Amino acid sequence: MSFPELQNDVFLRALQRQPVPYTPIWLMRQAGRYLAEYKEARARAGSFMGLATNPDLATEVTLQPLERFPLDAAILFSDILTIPDAMGLGLSFAQGEGPRFAKTVRDEAAVQALTVPDMGSLDYVFRAVTQIRHALSGRVPLIGFAGSPFTLACYMVEGQGSSDYRTIKTMLYQRPDLLHRILEVNAEAVAQYLNAQIDAGAQAVMIFDSWGGVLADGAFQAFSLDYTRRVLSQLKRESNGVAVPSIVFTKGGGMWLDQIAAVGSDAVGVDWTVNLQQARQRVGDRVALQGNLDPMALFASPEQVAAEARRVLDDFGTVSPGAGHVFNLGHGISQFTPPESVVALVAEVHEYSARFHQAGGANQA
Amino acid sequence: MSFPELQNDVFLRALQRQPVPYTPIWLMRQAGRYLAEYKEARARAGSFMGLATNPDLATEVTLQPLERFPLDAAILFSDILTIPDAMGLGLSFAQGEGPRFAKTVRDEAAVQALTVPDMGSLDYVFRAVTQIRHALSGRVPLIGFAGSPFTLACYMVEGQGSSDYRTIKTMLYQRPDLLHRILEVNAEAVAQYLNAQIDAGAQAVMIFDSWGGVLADGAFQAFSLDYTRRVLSQLKRESNGVAVPSIVFTKGGGMWLDQIAAVGSDAVGVDWTVNLQQARQRVGDRVALQGNLDPMALFASPEQVAAEARRVLDDFGTVSPGAGHVFNLGHGISQFTPPESVVALVAEVHEYSARFHQAGGANQA
Repeated sequence: MSFPELQNDVFLRALQRQPVPYTPIWLMRQAGRYLAEYKEARARAGSFMGLATNPDLATEVTLQPLERFPLDAAILFSDILTIPDAMGLGLSFAQGEGPRFAKTVRDEAAVQALTVPDMGSLDYVFRAVTQIRHALSGRVPLIGFAGSPFTLACYMVEGQGSSDYRTIKTMLYQRPDLLHRILEVNAEAVAQYLNAQIDAGAQAVMIFDSWGGVLADGAFQAFSLDYTRRVLSQLKRESNGVAVPSIVFTKGGGMWLDQIAAVGSDAVGVDWTVNLQQARQRVGDRVALQGNLDPMALFASPEQVAAEARRVLDDFGTVSPGAGHVFNLGHGISQFTPPESVVALVAEVHEYSARFHQAGGANQA
Repeated sequence: MSFPELQNDVFLRALQRQPVPYTPIWLMRQAGRYLAEYKEARARAGSFMGLATNPDLATEVTLQPLERFPLDAAILFSDILTIPDAMGLGLSFAQGEGPRFAKTVRDEAAVQALTVPDMGSLDYVFRAVTQIRHALSGRVPLIGFAGSPFTLACYMVEGQGSSDYRTIKTMLYQRPDLLHRILEVNAEAVAQYLNAQIDAGAQAVMIFDSWGGVLADGAFQAFSLDYTRRVLSQLKRESNGVAVPSIVFTKGGGMWLDQIAAVGSDAVGVDWTVNLQQARQRVGDRVALQGNLDPMALFASPEQVAAEARRVLDDFGTVSPGAGHVFNLGHGISQFTPPESVVALVAEVHEYSARFHQAGGANQA
């Protein structure tokens, strides 16, 4: 496939720990409900999945935040649960509630029946990736993504969100063999899915291990990290001769940062509980770090938002040769965020961060 | 006050890192809904607060788990929200929901009006402590407890539980002065409250920082840990010439373990995400450690529960001179837990842990 030439590669270079002139920034869930134009498109689509499964609409909302803020990356508008949906579990989003599956995978029979879905059934995602990549016209790179095998399993076993993950943890402690089998299928599915996104035009990929942090030490490594490693080991590392860097984000995984940094990704996302200076000491130059402003800091005044942004950049400090930092929130942006806060945040990160970089060779838009 | 002589001091000795013959165990929320006799007493009381404010009933339910399991400590049956209730905020527990306050502390006027409650209004708690201590007849020590200043503030500002702590974090980032003022009042109230529990007969005290772990690095230290330190600095360290050790538990605080271990308590509770071996290396012999089995492990078979208990004990390893380990869950026991799992857990901890201790000088019941 042929796409317009990339004009701003600061994000991709930072992920690969190459010199850049400033710290790039994008925001998890940057295309979302805090934007009036998103809510308008969502209403037109009729439902969340109506939005996610329509490449025209997915393209429209993916580009919305870029019209408002000079962000350094776009991320595919989609959901991590497209894979279990394609497995036939029947995903729906009730109004005002979280995702819910019509079927769950809890017993031996359901686990044995589970298979890697035909990627053809996820073609709407890959078509959206290609369409967005064209629509971006090379302004910034496009990030593809998937949930981690364990995070997908949480939803597949619980059937919905959970406060204590009792059902999947009961399986983990009582029938670890069943959970391992689900995770094997998920790992294969996630790898195929991300590779298809790369083929369709994704220029970086991110694995969201949203729920790995609820596991006990030991269980995290065996049931989450090992399967993320399996995904990464199967990923295409480049497309048309250009590197496609990868990011792994484990919410609540700060304690396991050393191990996550060795999983095989180019970058590791960290939440706001992590001290970036200590994190750098722990990971050395093995990976770039992405993060980690508390999304709730965006409810302060623009001046205070800027001060909090500086604090994160100060914590990371000078981006010495071989290091890499991508600014982000420590979790998805809240639907109640005032967009003015994002204006202040992006401006401050771009301006203030320059002092931490030696002039690099990156292309800037 | 004069109380029956203590027959089992293994828990108190372990907290003080003195030699013990086995690893003592108690469980957070051990008097609770997983016990049929608790539900029966709760029904008789009519409401949760009816139970907590009646010293006879509080004594009855505090002792219930000890009738079933040979636990090494009892913990006062109460709630961390008694203090904000005594501040006049109007605590209630709706059926099947969490706690809720009739009034919140969100604006300048409400914050300025806030004062340390008269401890007389909490007399029902202190009377329960004394009555329980007598009822225990020295079988095991009695733990008193309170919420941390920050955790109390979460409920006071939010008015109830929260998924994103948006209201209190907005205050933290926008009006840190208001939050600091709330925390000052809370710290003074918690210190007075715990000292009154010690005077009433509590033999150890625990501070639950249930929500400190939701804060960003930096904010945790300034808005949670500093106020826990303030409480600890005011605590009585002994009663009638006997030491009263203290425990601080911060759910999700594993990353800050070094700093928490320096806050001034005798022991630090850790959740299940923490690796106990690494935790020991980080805290050295500064504090004892309490924890940290995943409460969800209790949904496995008794044999599997025993195996998970061994894993925790193996992680901690030999309890060398100067070290201390108290076995516990990493969070409160689930209301759905089969009591047989607790039987298996307590038996295995007592039996298997002996190999990690040199014969100590403790009294055992």
